[in-house]
Amino acid sequence: MTTRFTDELRLKAGDQWNRIIHHRFTKELAAGTIDRQTVMKRYLIQDHRFLDSFSVLLASIIAHLPTLQDRIPGAQFLAVITGPENTYFERAFQALGISNQERHNTPDAAVTTKICALMRNVAMNGTLAEMLAVITVCEWSYLSWGQLVFHETKRDDFVTYEWVDLHSGDDFERVVEYFRLHLDREGAMLDEAGRIACENRFLEAVQLEEEFFEYAYGD
Amino acid sequence: MTTRFTDELRLKAGDQWNRIIHHRFTKELAAGTIDRQTVMKRYLIQDHRFLDSFSVLLASIIAHLPTLQDRIPGAQFLAVITGPENTYFERAFQALGISNQERHNTPDAAVTTKICALMRNVAMNGTLAEMLAVITVCEWSYLSWGQLVFHETKRDDFVTYEWVDLHSGDDFERVVEYFRLHLDREGAMLDEAGRIACENRFLEAVQLEEEFFEYAYGD
Repeated sequence: MTTRFTDELRLKAGDQWNRIIHHRFTKELAAGTIDRQTVMKRYLIQDHRFLDSFSVLLASIIAHLPTLQDRIPGAQFLAVITGPENTYFERAFQALGISNQERHNTPDAAVTTKICALMRNVAMNGTLAEMLAVITVCEWSYLSWGQLVFHETKRDDFVTYEWVDLHSGDDFERVVEYFRLHLDREGAMLDEAGRIACENRFLEAVQLEEEFFEYAYGD
Repeated sequence: MTTRFTDELRLKAGDQWNRIIHHRFTKELAAGTIDRQTVMKRYLIQDHRFLDSFSVLLASIIAHLPTLQDRIPGAQFLAVITGPENTYFERAFQALGISNQERHNTPDAAVTTKICALMRNVAMNGTLAEMLAVITVCEWSYLSWGQLVFHETKRDDFVTYEWVDLHSGDDFERVVEYFRLHLDREGAMLDEAGRIACENRFLEAVQLEEEFFEYAYGD
């Protein structure tokens, strides 16, 4: 049995992968003990800003995948994340008493700027493997912590439990498997330089995921 | 009142635009008199092959539009055209007795190769304005003939009338207006070289639309 390329990449991230998926942010989210007015507010205002760059990255992946059959699940996922049904952020902002003014007046955090730049840069200048490396980190790390905390999640406040639900379950697992599968396939066709470039993007994305959880707890 | 950039482009196409939207293919389609076993069969087998290149083009446009708000209608349209509900082709192939074998054994027509190459080339190497120029021709020319024949369309065979319905009506009008609006906006920001490049793509696409209708009637 050969090791999957994506498993190799995750192993290269070493303990940083585990620090992300066992982060206190995800534990406190599941337990419902997270400080909503500091940690959750900081996190959500910035996280919402990734949506546009994430859409650019996903659309570029759809354009670069080899066949129509490969593009279809990506296109359906893009429609979901850009769809009017994706109201979690709006409802959470309202529940936490975050005004439009407060949202718009809050400057981008340094880590937000770096994450958006990584997504857009790889979408416009990277190979398909590099694009997939970045999006796979985003979705796979979230699925991994989502699965870990799902069964212990307290269900009294949608602001916390719905964020867990959005990152666990069969549908989201299929999305992650879709990105991993294509990254495995692309990985098998890369030469040494291509593999290194792909690995660098993967590790850069892992680094930024950890920085982002840390950011939520204060600079 | 200023002239819309897209109206200027259409005027540059001159009589060729009118030849497309008044083509005998569209008249015979609406009247239901089209020869299904030669013209319609030739047309549908080849037209179905554009779907993948069209998806690449649309996904690239979504990636290059300026804001998330701009991307959303494109993302929803991409999900529709790549969605499982888009069954017209499959039902039409069945109704016309076209086997999978016949479909797959029919080589790409020269015009099909040219159309797919134009869509993919502009998606990977063109400016947003050039991408929009190509997709606008595809959708706007079809809406224009669809609107012209809609009220005289005979409704006894879905193979003919459903193809008219797919290219007329409010929803499709909104799709075309969405592409035109973005092309108008991009056009306003182009320098002379950019305008010429955009115009060339537009006229190339118009040329291929006419060639494609002509192809359906035999080489």
